[in-house]
Amino acid sequence: MVTPLRDRDQLDVAGLERLVERAIDGGVSGLFILGTTGEGPSLSYRLRRELVERVCRQVKSRVPVLVGITDTAFVESVNVARHAADAGADAVVAAPPYYLPEAQPELREYLDHLVPELPLPLYLYNMPALTKVSFELETVRHAMDNPRIVGLKDSSGNLDYFKRAAGLLKQRPDWTLLIGPEEMLFESILAGGLGGVSGGANLFPKLYVRLCEAARAGDVARARELQAQVLCISGSLYRIGRHSSSIIKGIKCALACLGICNDFMAEPFHRFRAEERALVESRLKEIETALSKLSL
Amino acid sequence: MVTPLRDRDQLDVAGLERLVERAIDGGVSGLFILGTTGEGPSLSYRLRRELVERVCRQVKSRVPVLVGITDTAFVESVNVARHAADAGADAVVAAPPYYLPEAQPELREYLDHLVPELPLPLYLYNMPALTKVSFELETVRHAMDNPRIVGLKDSSGNLDYFKRAAGLLKQRPDWTLLIGPEEMLFESILAGGLGGVSGGANLFPKLYVRLCEAARAGDVARARELQAQVLCISGSLYRIGRHSSSIIKGIKCALACLGICNDFMAEPFHRFRAEERALVESRLKEIETALSKLSL
Amino acid sequence: MVTPLRDRDQLDVAGLERLVERAIDGGVSGLFILGTTGEGPSLSYRLRRELVERVCRQVKSRVPVLVGITDTAFVESVNVARHAADAGADAVVAAPPYYLPEAQPELREYLDHLVPELPLPLYLYNMPALTKVSFELETVRHAMDNPRIVGLKDSSGNLDYFKRAAGLLKQRPDWTLLIGPEEMLFESILAGGLGGVSGGANLFPKLYVRLCEAARAGDVARARELQAQVLCISGSLYRIGRHSSSIIKGIKCALACLGICNDFMAEPFHRFRAEERALVESRLKEIETALSKLSL
Amino acid sequence: MVTPLRDRDQLDVAGLERLVERAIDGGVSGLFILGTTGEGPSLSYRLRRELVERVCRQVKSRVPVLVGITDTAFVESVNVARHAADAGADAVVAAPPYYLPEAQPELREYLDHLVPELPLPLYLYNMPALTKVSFELETVRHAMDNPRIVGLKDSSGNLDYFKRAAGLLKQRPDWTLLIGPEEMLFESILAGGLGGVSGGANLFPKLYVRLCEAARAGDVARARELQAQVLCISGSLYRIGRHSSSIIKGIKCALACLGICNDFMAEPFHRFRAEERALVESRLKEIETALSKLSL
Repeated sequence: MVTPLRDRDQLDVAGLERLVERAIDGGVSGLFILGTTGEGPSLSYRLRRELVERVCRQVKSRVPVLVGITDTAFVESVNVARHAADAGADAVVAAPPYYLPEAQPELREYLDHLVPELPLPLYLYNMPALTKVSFELETVRHAMDNPRIVGLKDSSGNLDYFKRAAGLLKQRPDWTLLIGPEEMLFESILAGGLGGVSGGANLFPKLYVRLCEAARAGDVARARELQAQVLCISGSLYRIGRHSSSIIKGIKCALACLGICNDFMAEPFHRFRAEERALVESRLKEIETALSKLSL
Repeated sequence: MVTPLRDRDQLDVAGLERLVERAIDGGVSGLFILGTTGEGPSLSYRLRRELVERVCRQVKSRVPVLVGITDTAFVESVNVARHAADAGADAVVAAPPYYLPEAQPELREYLDHLVPELPLPLYLYNMPALTKVSFELETVRHAMDNPRIVGLKDSSGNLDYFKRAAGLLKQRPDWTLLIGPEEMLFESILAGGLGGVSGGANLFPKLYVRLCEAARAGDVARARELQAQVLCISGSLYRIGRHSSSIIKGIKCALACLGICNDFMAEPFHRFRAEERALVESRLKEIETALSKLSL
Repeated sequence: MVTPLRDRDQLDVAGLERLVERAIDGGVSGLFILGTTGEGPSLSYRLRRELVERVCRQVKSRVPVLVGITDTAFVESVNVARHAADAGADAVVAAPPYYLPEAQPELREYLDHLVPELPLPLYLYNMPALTKVSFELETVRHAMDNPRIVGLKDSSGNLDYFKRAAGLLKQRPDWTLLIGPEEMLFESILAGGLGGVSGGANLFPKLYVRLCEAARAGDVARARELQAQVLCISGSLYRIGRHSSSIIKGIKCALACLGICNDFMAEPFHRFRAEERALVESRLKEIETALSKLSL
Repeated sequence: MVTPLRDRDQLDVAGLERLVERAIDGGVSGLFILGTTGEGPSLSYRLRRELVERVCRQVKSRVPVLVGITDTAFVESVNVARHAADAGADAVVAAPPYYLPEAQPELREYLDHLVPELPLPLYLYNMPALTKVSFELETVRHAMDNPRIVGLKDSSGNLDYFKRAAGLLKQRPDWTLLIGPEEMLFESILAGGLGGVSGGANLFPKLYVRLCEAARAGDVARARELQAQVLCISGSLYRIGRHSSSIIKGIKCALACLGICNDFMAEPFHRFRAEERALVESRLKEIETALSKLSL
């Protein structure tokens, strides 16, 4: 979930409410806040706490709320996790500490030390492009020995890795394996994943929900059709800017065009300008036309 | 400066005092706390504040205190800077936000927005290996237009870059250009730099001070002799571990061997084990013998 | 196809014959020689010519023969291509020149200049991990304007890229889109690819042929079963060495264990030692047992 | 030395003669042909042989001729080396094979196998940005055990590495340690290097010769002055294009402006267009004015 902002360090409260309702109405199985798309690391701790509280209060346990606690500082990760538990969240999500890269044995020990401090179950978040360090498969296997670690979100974009992670589920059939990049959501479910943490579900939750359902049900034709539409959304909305932040900018801009929430970005990033917004607007029209034909 | 720790989220207060006095006695021109070697990003904000207060109180303006405010969250950088000003620090130091990489125009705008919020002058900190993003020369040139930005610490290890940055000093002769990697401290001063922010100065401040003096005075023979000793320290103490954290571990372990402070590391890292510590101990003896012959 | 060697610059002629027959008997749709797995860039031009001649003579047009001409030197690529045409090969395959990286406009112009010199149709070979440079989608689109360029083998491992390349096939429905990494062969066909250039097909061609057939026929259950077996082969045979050459070493070692050909490697690589070979041998047994249950 | 070309696979013979004489008149200590700046890997073997013959014939042992034999194919490296010996060259130079990356033990074994096949002494060429693989210090130390390996050209741009390599010269005082990047030529000699393999010496050999002389003589003031001029040449001529090939393009274009040789580039690169050439031309004028004041 993106974090709707009105200004620096100010939530767009009304936009947040609309966004949450749209997702729940769309049928999502859960909400993941304070992740990469949620600009988690760019937000003040005060705002992170406010966001966690507001989302939990609004969701009222209709779906599970997962809270990102990825941090370079161990103690701050624990602080956010404790606050999340108090607010009523259901789980926390952590990528490896991402300033000075740690080795795998250090990462395993980090998990061993972190988990006992957490009042909520933990999902691992594999995001090597941004954290430099990957949860290597041996580390995932190690994590599976810990019953408080309950799943993995893989944003590596490496389907081979994902499949091998799926192969480890024999050891922990209760684990939840989720994929980040929505461009391979269908394939991830075919490979044994449960679903996706898809940025585009901020915009069109029903599309992603239907895609997961079709894939899980083995309806290959329908899943391919829906996946093709997801690929088209990604191609038309996420690559307008040239920089790595263009995915989030594209999603927030489209949400603003749809009247859902503000497209203010946390520093050091900035919303699209008029020219790029016009492009988003016209592409959104095409997407909505295409979506209307899919009878979601 | 390293951050002496007794335990997770606990300063080694006595060790910190010894470390600060050793540096000032050694003749350093200033102290930089909460940098990479100071494990800044791994520490809780509470501990960062405590460290800033204790160091400022102890230094009592004998030398300037520079405080690292590098953060992925703009607001937290400002918070640390404000606290540093209140505590009596002299300047703050910021590397680029380091989770989602920003483009140079975004980095320039980030500086434009950050500086007005800071109650202290700002040094840039170029550390691309850890932040992914570099302060490119055009961005440094832009920063020089802002009188509140007063210098650059370059830890790129790229002497070509450093020399070109030195070439820009014509525009701002008051700027302070410092080098990170102590392995090229001599060359950096030859190239127009003022001095170094050297991890090894935690251990042997006088050596680094004398090296800077010799280099600035144009005493090439003496500077080369001292630089060779610095290279030897780096080669024998910083590469004992195989991982990127081995520099900090080596320095902290050597400080513990010297009876200066505890070698506890912030998560996700851990102090050297007995085997590695024995190696540090024996190499320290060789270094001390060599240092005694240099009549610092 | 691997290149069976008896010694430095000496083909294992008998092994080569067995290997070719095994592949054709296994039902492969074509042979790609002098690729990465074929150690093409490590072989002398003399040996490359001998290999091309022997393979073409033996295949006798039973299946198409594709010849790798990837080279840092334009003229040598053309030389190999001309020789391949004379020997009766059907097409050539080129990755970007891989010493000094070129920009995409340079790569497009390179193709524009190369194709008129080639007596055979050209397949592009996307292999950014080794060539540093990718055939970006805009360049693929450009290549599709040239009727002499007839396909793309993508070894990027990036399924998002592959899907977008598949999306371009509208422009050239006659193009052949093939995937390198066999770990995602099934998904590549689901996404619109035609098949794979799979190193493991040296060992068990029938498995890969059946997998492609099942995937093309939409028999998802069977394709998943066969793909899982391919993943298992990859996991157990290609990762025994720690280095990037371990895939080729694993395949060649397994071929030697199966009595098909010698496992001599071109410099700077070397065959597995006894210890690793024992591992390959025992894993091969497990694989053969598993394969026998799949009734290929 | 650049390789003057008239057209694809055609030497600019007259230009080559002028270039060689200019370098020898300028006082260079040797010529290195078929390196990166010489576009070695982009040239056909026929042209490489022709170049070696012509250069050796013209130089007539006035200075040593070093010939690049870097290749992905072991046998082709040996072939070029044999031809170089027949033509009268003095040594060969090899970077690691650069397609599939090899590990250090493989690289050491590669050297062990290569050297006995070479009729000439060997220089190592460390160029990790292009070959992916570095001659790590342990491998350099190993190479020093072989009397037929006589030196190292380091183009890593990492002064720390260079200094540590210089530290190894105790073991082989007869070794020749040279630096690639001319931006740190002065510092490399201060650190124990003998000199540079400087692309800019194609243009202004005397400048680089004088810089080496001043640095070796310990004339720091003069060396800094000359090094500053070298930095200025690099900054104004090598960065006109945006791509990695812009150094070679800049040098060849400047040579053409000076009437020395043709600026034709081997594929996949192309000479600067009129606009960029105009820039080179105007900057050359400034450089020549500055050079005239240096009384070389």
